[in-house]
Amino acid sequence: MKRLGVGLVGSGFMGRSHAHAFRAAAGVFDLPMAPTLELLADVNETVAARAADALGFNRSTGDWKALVADPAVDLVDITTPNTLHKPIALAAIEAGKPVYCEKPLAPNALEAKRMVDAAERKGVKTAVGFNYLKNPMVALAREIVASGEIGEVVSFRGIHAEDYMTDPKAPFTWRLDAAGGHGVVADLGSHIISIARFVVGPIESVVGQIRTVTDKRPSGPGASEMRAVEVDDEARALVRFAGGATGSLEASWVAAGRKMMLAFEVTGTKGTIAVDHERFNELQLYTVGQPGGREGFKTILAGPQHDSYKEFCPAPGHQLGFNDIKTIEVKALITALAGGKAFMPDFREAWEIQRVVDAIVQSAREERWLAVTEI
Amino acid sequence: MKRLGVGLVGSGFMGRSHAHAFRAAAGVFDLPMAPTLELLADVNETVAARAADALGFNRSTGDWKALVADPAVDLVDITTPNTLHKPIALAAIEAGKPVYCEKPLAPNALEAKRMVDAAERKGVKTAVGFNYLKNPMVALAREIVASGEIGEVVSFRGIHAEDYMTDPKAPFTWRLDAAGGHGVVADLGSHIISIARFVVGPIESVVGQIRTVTDKRPSGPGASEMRAVEVDDEARALVRFAGGATGSLEASWVAAGRKMMLAFEVTGTKGTIAVDHERFNELQLYTVGQPGGREGFKTILAGPQHDSYKEFCPAPGHQLGFNDIKTIEVKALITALAGGKAFMPDFREAWEIQRVVDAIVQSAREERWLAVTEI
Amino acid sequence: MKRLGVGLVGSGFMGRSHAHAFRAAAGVFDLPMAPTLELLADVNETVAARAADALGFNRSTGDWKALVADPAVDLVDITTPNTLHKPIALAAIEAGKPVYCEKPLAPNALEAKRMVDAAERKGVKTAVGFNYLKNPMVALAREIVASGEIGEVVSFRGIHAEDYMTDPKAPFTWRLDAAGGHGVVADLGSHIISIARFVVGPIESVVGQIRTVTDKRPSGPGASEMRAVEVDDEARALVRFAGGATGSLEASWVAAGRKMMLAFEVTGTKGTIAVDHERFNELQLYTVGQPGGREGFKTILAGPQHDSYKEFCPAPGHQLGFNDIKTIEVKALITALAGGKAFMPDFREAWEIQRVVDAIVQSAREERWLAVTEI
Amino acid sequence: MKRLGVGLVGSGFMGRSHAHAFRAAAGVFDLPMAPTLELLADVNETVAARAADALGFNRSTGDWKALVADPAVDLVDITTPNTLHKPIALAAIEAGKPVYCEKPLAPNALEAKRMVDAAERKGVKTAVGFNYLKNPMVALAREIVASGEIGEVVSFRGIHAEDYMTDPKAPFTWRLDAAGGHGVVADLGSHIISIARFVVGPIESVVGQIRTVTDKRPSGPGASEMRAVEVDDEARALVRFAGGATGSLEASWVAAGRKMMLAFEVTGTKGTIAVDHERFNELQLYTVGQPGGREGFKTILAGPQHDSYKEFCPAPGHQLGFNDIKTIEVKALITALAGGKAFMPDFREAWEIQRVVDAIVQSAREERWLAVTEI
Repeated sequence: MKRLGVGLVGSGFMGRSHAHAFRAAAGVFDLPMAPTLELLADVNETVAARAADALGFNRSTGDWKALVADPAVDLVDITTPNTLHKPIALAAIEAGKPVYCEKPLAPNALEAKRMVDAAERKGVKTAVGFNYLKNPMVALAREIVASGEIGEVVSFRGIHAEDYMTDPKAPFTWRLDAAGGHGVVADLGSHIISIARFVVGPIESVVGQIRTVTDKRPSGPGASEMRAVEVDDEARALVRFAGGATGSLEASWVAAGRKMMLAFEVTGTKGTIAVDHERFNELQLYTVGQPGGREGFKTILAGPQHDSYKEFCPAPGHQLGFNDIKTIEVKALITALAGGKAFMPDFREAWEIQRVVDAIVQSAREERWLAVTEI
Repeated sequence: MKRLGVGLVGSGFMGRSHAHAFRAAAGVFDLPMAPTLELLADVNETVAARAADALGFNRSTGDWKALVADPAVDLVDITTPNTLHKPIALAAIEAGKPVYCEKPLAPNALEAKRMVDAAERKGVKTAVGFNYLKNPMVALAREIVASGEIGEVVSFRGIHAEDYMTDPKAPFTWRLDAAGGHGVVADLGSHIISIARFVVGPIESVVGQIRTVTDKRPSGPGASEMRAVEVDDEARALVRFAGGATGSLEASWVAAGRKMMLAFEVTGTKGTIAVDHERFNELQLYTVGQPGGREGFKTILAGPQHDSYKEFCPAPGHQLGFNDIKTIEVKALITALAGGKAFMPDFREAWEIQRVVDAIVQSAREERWLAVTEI
Repeated sequence: MKRLGVGLVGSGFMGRSHAHAFRAAAGVFDLPMAPTLELLADVNETVAARAADALGFNRSTGDWKALVADPAVDLVDITTPNTLHKPIALAAIEAGKPVYCEKPLAPNALEAKRMVDAAERKGVKTAVGFNYLKNPMVALAREIVASGEIGEVVSFRGIHAEDYMTDPKAPFTWRLDAAGGHGVVADLGSHIISIARFVVGPIESVVGQIRTVTDKRPSGPGASEMRAVEVDDEARALVRFAGGATGSLEASWVAAGRKMMLAFEVTGTKGTIAVDHERFNELQLYTVGQPGGREGFKTILAGPQHDSYKEFCPAPGHQLGFNDIKTIEVKALITALAGGKAFMPDFREAWEIQRVVDAIVQSAREERWLAVTEI
Repeated sequence: MKRLGVGLVGSGFMGRSHAHAFRAAAGVFDLPMAPTLELLADVNETVAARAADALGFNRSTGDWKALVADPAVDLVDITTPNTLHKPIALAAIEAGKPVYCEKPLAPNALEAKRMVDAAERKGVKTAVGFNYLKNPMVALAREIVASGEIGEVVSFRGIHAEDYMTDPKAPFTWRLDAAGGHGVVADLGSHIISIARFVVGPIESVVGQIRTVTDKRPSGPGASEMRAVEVDDEARALVRFAGGATGSLEASWVAAGRKMMLAFEVTGTKGTIAVDHERFNELQLYTVGQPGGREGFKTILAGPQHDSYKEFCPAPGHQLGFNDIKTIEVKALITALAGGKAFMPDFREAWEIQRVVDAIVQSAREERWLAVTEI
């Protein structure tokens, strides 16, 4: 079987998660190529060597350019801080190597578009890690919509709310640095936008509202000095889909008590779907036409009849975890690299998502409806 | 004990519900006045007589003006079709009699304002039947917010979604008649607006989106002729509260499967509240500062420690029903009429609610943010 | 319409609830007779007079025998402490008057049987207030089972758990007095037994376990003196139904946090039903044979298509409360008295329930399986 | 770091799961030894070779005895059909090698005891795969009980219900072969017994009920010939714990609609815990003494403050899956083999669990209470 040499840049949480997923995918799925954890790059040799050892990579380097150039590296996998996504991706594309990049591609749609153009010019395959699109229950939602089981989509309500920035004394982090892009609308909002597009379709126009709830935070852990926060802590928008549906999107990282409320409800002319990632192995489904007195939403538990589940477990209801979702993502990536079904979301799709992010922010600042094509 | 002669105009579902509530309130609560079902008016003598008999009224009439003028009628209670609310209320006010009117007061804010002005000039007490404000769990939400238990309010998400117009073949009804006012944004949206104002406070500005999903319906039950629908089937808005909080509101009567999803979530700087009226005897509460590894939303079941519950049942968890909520409303009304705590929402508050309804529609039509004071 | 003169003995919580239900039933339902709150008896004239005034009875008396004998009393309604149920009921039966008695009929099956025999000899109609059997969702469970929608019943798990005696310092009350019968197995266990019989059918044999968790309690509120508790704080049993199904029953009044967990699950060869009275307007239903990948329990919300709901509210999902259930009970009673469908549970059924209660206790004491017919 | 050569016997679902767990554990946790997938044995060379290739083992063999004897195998891991557990385990023990065996150890307690004795005589470390004990929420339940947060345990209700044998036409399988031991009481019941012992403590006596619901099944897939079923399809028992608590246990594989209802509720004198594995990343906790009007069960979502979670994900609410639980099990095993905290459950604990299984069956057959020590 053909070998796929993985070159990973970055070894933080997402780096670990990717390494785990490559290793797990080989055991769980019947893959068309054999991924090898070939080379790991990090900020310097020492850090990289330690991480390579911990994560099971064959070799390490302190120079990501060397990684890109390394002949044993067939795939460049980017899990660095966001500001490095672009230069590394462009270098990999230039070298003709496929790229697997964590979201967001770039701080704004303009820069993301340049990455799309570069990749498409070179004909390089790309993939972006919008994990939750690989949740079998999200795939099921898309399938139900596409099959017409709930009729035509009337509306969509999407929320991604967590609470990791609720404490006003939580210190400034890279997430709050406006140089890296927008705030929660990019960090979490992009996930719910990705689902909206995946399940319902393109978004045509938006009117947004953004807000910085805590406008000064300690400049670092334990710091007494304060630093101004310029990015949004919460954001929401009304949207119109190209297909005619309407809806709303919402993102917050100050939603006290919500740990993983990536939730959406799709209302169709003949039924409704609801999913909440705090219970992401479940999908609620209502269809019109049930017998009188027996109507209700049903709770479908993930099981072997749903996408990619049975390879993890032959029995329903046993649940997949976050890392399993990432393992499914890696399976889809390797399948695509081997010539199978194209991976989605690719750079182009990530750019489309970023356009909606930017449109929400700009429409909020200008206090008006904005066509996404204006971005 | 002083007697309160009730004169009810209208004997449809809400008329029955009011009659039931007056009767029930006398048994459940220790009231300061004794309500008597004195006189019932309906479209003609026959209908009125039959209804008076069924609902236990002493007398009946086919002429609401006679009811207003009747010396034994101390309170004029209006549950007629919406278009009659205004003339009856104005006549009652003119006669110096307190008015208890079902929502909405009037088809638009302008007409509602005239009713407010009339009542305030005359010094007549008024009450409007926004039932759900009397749900003890909604009162609890207000109390938790007011006490600062969840800190300052950051955001509010409010939804009232039901599905009674989902079927595109469901015939035209008075609810769809634009002469009576707006569509679902008035019918259901007004409920969630009333809660937003009750729990969080005044709404300063909005940007709305409205949509008629089914634009033609059979003109009546079994009719083959079609009639155009001009009012909204679904509506949503972004809002800014005067106190600084942000949020969204949503209303739909085509939300397949949702039977009574009057749901809201209030996020504060120190906690979050969530309520859904499909389970309206419950309130979800999260507060920051719980012990590590023991953090979570708690599900509070309505019980005797909550507003107006213990008179129904001494034990928690036994649940109140929709009609009990209406009974609490009547208790509050009689208390106010007897000189106790003023009843809310009165006509002025109903007008404020209607202004938000109108603002959502106007901002949707003009595709722009609108200050509620522009209405 | 024929008048039904109600004579109520007792004016505690259940007395109030009955009075409320008679008044409410007349407004909510189209009854075949007109109930009149005619006469109220309590421990003495003063208490009775005050209660009659509060609950809206025409007259009062300090002597229940006078009530039984009163010619204007057509129905003797007993909501006294348990020890008085028997003498009052027997007197009413002797007088040829129908009896509506709160559960339990008597402290044990033997005494209950005497009441059954007396009533049947005299041909007097009887009714016992096992409220929850009138919950439309319990009626729906019975209907689903009877129709074969879930095949043949395989097993039943029934629980009634509350927590009002959890605190070991909660003082001794009449509920703990062994003279009045057993403990929680009678107080709450009888409810779940009544449901088991109603939904599945007769219980043939049991093996029980009972336990007094707190064996000494303050003899009264604020008392320092302690009194020994002899009755059970929790009880459970394995059961065999006459129809072949198996199952378990459980009762506890020391189930910390459970406020109204009257819950049951019926498993059939083709499906499963689950109900929990903390959300008693819902029924969970699973049936085999759903399409692949779309299988799940559905949550059915109470609505107008279910028994007795539409008279309270024309729209689904608006919920009934505890007192509404009691109102349905009263409607069924008046219907039966007017010659309609017989009321269930009558004294005979209450005796059958009591036999299971006694069988659980005796089998627990003797540590063996016991046929219910041994009682 | 010291190498741990894993010899796996069996490559069905559990074999795959073990292989996955060893590979994943190395990436997720900081292990004291480096597990190597050294040798895989299966029924013959061909099957073993194919499985070794798919699961990433270095070598393969058709002879488990060769595996036990292989000098590079440091750990004998048994995931064969149940009837082979004993001979392989005894051989491994004889060879002085630690054993990791899937549940159940043996068809009955007597044979399990022989395996315990052999292991203890040889001083060999043993581990049995009762997966769910490694669920962080089950560990949390144990911790809450042990810390006294819910006071003294009063009662325990445990259920393991699934529906994979609901269809009466589902063919005969090894699970139904009485030669391999009991039916669902062993297959699923052992899991809930393991949790009862882990969270509450030893079980002293039981009275059981077992039933074969479908007593004849097609002898194989598509077979027209029928084969008699002798083992139990459902089982339940009342139990007394050595510490004084009471409770019930239940197991069913014909529980239509239940996919992974491994659920338990522990009631203490000061609070209650509830867990259901259909949502196994959640624990419901109620404690007495909450502020008035603010009492409720809280829903705790698994997060980094709970056992073994943070190595999978730094953020709460992201959920672990079934395979992650198995990965935690392998981590605990390797830690124990390296001299750290002893692994539980070992063979002795598995024998204790099996005694309860056997006691339930025997007490059901003899229709009497049975002390577990009688087994």
